[in-house]
Amino acid sequence: MKEEEKDTARIEAFSDGVFAIAITLLALELKVPHSVGGGAEGLVRALVNQWPAYLSFVTSFCTILIMWGNHHEVFRLVRRTNTGFMLANGFLLMLVTVVPFTTALISDYLTGPGAVVASAAYGGHFVLVSIAYNLLWNAAVKGRVLLRSGVSEQVIRKFTRNYRLGFPLYLLAAVGAFLHPLVTIGICTALWVFWAFTMKRGGIE
Amino acid sequence: MKEEEKDTARIEAFSDGVFAIAITLLALELKVPHSVGGGAEGLVRALVNQWPAYLSFVTSFCTILIMWGNHHEVFRLVRRTNTGFMLANGFLLMLVTVVPFTTALISDYLTGPGAVVASAAYGGHFVLVSIAYNLLWNAAVKGRVLLRSGVSEQVIRKFTRNYRLGFPLYLLAAVGAFLHPLVTIGICTALWVFWAFTMKRGGIE
Amino acid sequence: MKEEEKDTARIEAFSDGVFAIAITLLALELKVPHSVGGGAEGLVRALVNQWPAYLSFVTSFCTILIMWGNHHEVFRLVRRTNTGFMLANGFLLMLVTVVPFTTALISDYLTGPGAVVASAAYGGHFVLVSIAYNLLWNAAVKGRVLLRSGVSEQVIRKFTRNYRLGFPLYLLAAVGAFLHPLVTIGICTALWVFWAFTMKRGGIE
Amino acid sequence: MKEEEKDTARIEAFSDGVFAIAITLLALELKVPHSVGGGAEGLVRALVNQWPAYLSFVTSFCTILIMWGNHHEVFRLVRRTNTGFMLANGFLLMLVTVVPFTTALISDYLTGPGAVVASAAYGGHFVLVSIAYNLLWNAAVKGRVLLRSGVSEQVIRKFTRNYRLGFPLYLLAAVGAFLHPLVTIGICTALWVFWAFTMKRGGIE
Repeated sequence: MKEEEKDTARIEAFSDGVFAIAITLLALELKVPHSVGGGAEGLVRALVNQWPAYLSFVTSFCTILIMWGNHHEVFRLVRRTNTGFMLANGFLLMLVTVVPFTTALISDYLTGPGAVVASAAYGGHFVLVSIAYNLLWNAAVKGRVLLRSGVSEQVIRKFTRNYRLGFPLYLLAAVGAFLHPLVTIGICTALWVFWAFTMKRGGIE
Repeated sequence: MKEEEKDTARIEAFSDGVFAIAITLLALELKVPHSVGGGAEGLVRALVNQWPAYLSFVTSFCTILIMWGNHHEVFRLVRRTNTGFMLANGFLLMLVTVVPFTTALISDYLTGPGAVVASAAYGGHFVLVSIAYNLLWNAAVKGRVLLRSGVSEQVIRKFTRNYRLGFPLYLLAAVGAFLHPLVTIGICTALWVFWAFTMKRGGIE
Repeated sequence: MKEEEKDTARIEAFSDGVFAIAITLLALELKVPHSVGGGAEGLVRALVNQWPAYLSFVTSFCTILIMWGNHHEVFRLVRRTNTGFMLANGFLLMLVTVVPFTTALISDYLTGPGAVVASAAYGGHFVLVSIAYNLLWNAAVKGRVLLRSGVSEQVIRKFTRNYRLGFPLYLLAAVGAFLHPLVTIGICTALWVFWAFTMKRGGIE
Repeated sequence: MKEEEKDTARIEAFSDGVFAIAITLLALELKVPHSVGGGAEGLVRALVNQWPAYLSFVTSFCTILIMWGNHHEVFRLVRRTNTGFMLANGFLLMLVTVVPFTTALISDYLTGPGAVVASAAYGGHFVLVSIAYNLLWNAAVKGRVLLRSGVSEQVIRKFTRNYRLGFPLYLLAAVGAFLHPLVTIGICTALWVFWAFTMKRGGIE
């Protein structure tokens, strides 16, 4: 194994660790209802009333999983790193660790008067994430010096197109909060479903 | 190392990370008793009264450990992945991260009026887990395209039989809650003990 | 890389993950003092009054680090696993994840009336840990079937002696709590200092 | 792969795990505002009022990321370990896990009367970190027995100079708290920005 490859491997492993921890911490936001009256029925009602927490947990979990898959794809094509790539990756990881916070925000406020603000923040955060992916991808392809040999211009164009798509769609999700908070979650769900079923063609397999 | 193998390795490492974090977070549910009166004796009594937390911690820890072992077994037989396998694995990981939540639920409510509900939810969650394992295993063997060469039909049949067994037994654990909450924990304990001592023959060694 | 070695590698990586997470979670017990009156001086006083938290954090951190080093040593000598070894390793990992709980316990109660109980529990937990190490080591050397070739009987005797030593010393730490709670922490500190400086001869390097 | 390299690899992987967990736990300090009155506007105001939490999160995240990069650099030059190196690494990891605590401290007290104390503690903690890096680096180069062959004296001098620089600058950050709390964060920010853009020349690429 060449020294160069080992470097990419360690950055990849570190990034994977951050993704894995952030995705697992999401579940900490599922709180056990405390001091519930009304016996068994009261507990069932309290658990059911927490549906925004389950909904936002599933949405965020699947989105981080897809983000991890995308991250994987980028690193598969890259054979070494430079400062710009490292900074873009660091920015992306920082945003990944914040997802449990925006998830907790939307989970706590989805059914109250702050729903629009919480949803817009949730969607807006993924706008930042899509910017980070574009920065990472731009750093990866710039001057074609970081890419593995044998990556065709056609593959690069396809990836570029896919990453460019994320920005306007998440912007729509953020702005959609002003129509209805569930519009944000709906668009985010549609996006991870779409990416989950098209990822294979994107090179994961 | 072929490109294909590296891919499986990264998914395996990510999954292992999620398992390791979820299993360690279980212990966060062991709470230090606060504002205990009655000096040393009061603290002993408060610690002893937390027995449902210790019991559910041990049950969940051992179950996740066995689940990790099973996950390991599946990946040992697989040489590459596809979308269906990735989605089943993602669904399984999502359920793994939720185990600390159902554990906290049963720990908090085992001795109160919500015991049946909490136990049924705890057992019911493992029903979902066993469904996820069956989905993962089905994706792994479908068309025999993801398996390593040299995996015999006999081994496949044995694994299929073992995974099929999990579903009705955990269903029994969930339904058993309506007899007595400890029936659920008893069946879950019996299951991890059984799997722990038969795993070797299942191919771990 | 042979299949057999890969298996040990994955168990080792999973165990390392649990050690790394447990050791990092220790710091979550360092709490920021809330609603402190008296301005800057009040905050300084509140921070200083938390000395049991710092003391128990340092003791537990160093002890887990040494435990990880010992775990490392055992796995260096082992080339494959069996059910007994896996179960002993699982038991050890379960105890490792509980260290943040016993640390929080001693941290909260060291200066109050529950100090003896908390210290005895803290020391007693490490008695269990030393039992787990002896179980792991016994499983590793039993019949000499799991060990790498070339591990001399002399090395085995040395390791056996070292692991046997842990049990009575931690028992002393647990019982010492009834003299004074700081006796427990003092013995635990002496132990990790001793092991830190003798580990090199134990084969880490 | 030689035995010696495998040892360094496991220590590196364990350290990376601790860095990854500590950096992800930082985000747990971003709290969702609870029981906010005044509807959507109230939530916006509450979120905006949390700016010290965001500022300290970004500062600590970037600083830990740079610390990880530096750790990476040291391990790239080292081919084996000894007791001194292991102890210095353990001391460094212990300090890394404490960063979420000092970050929470400055985040909670930045706008109140305890701001100077919290900022001095935050900066002072990084003084300890820079001492740990110097201990690690000294252990790495001592007698030139741990270094890979081919590491020139010129490279060693450059690294030594860089690590020596951290101590006085973080001391300045700690002392600067007595001028104004934001001086501490300002210097810490300037340092990670500086290191981020000069790291490439330090050998990361």
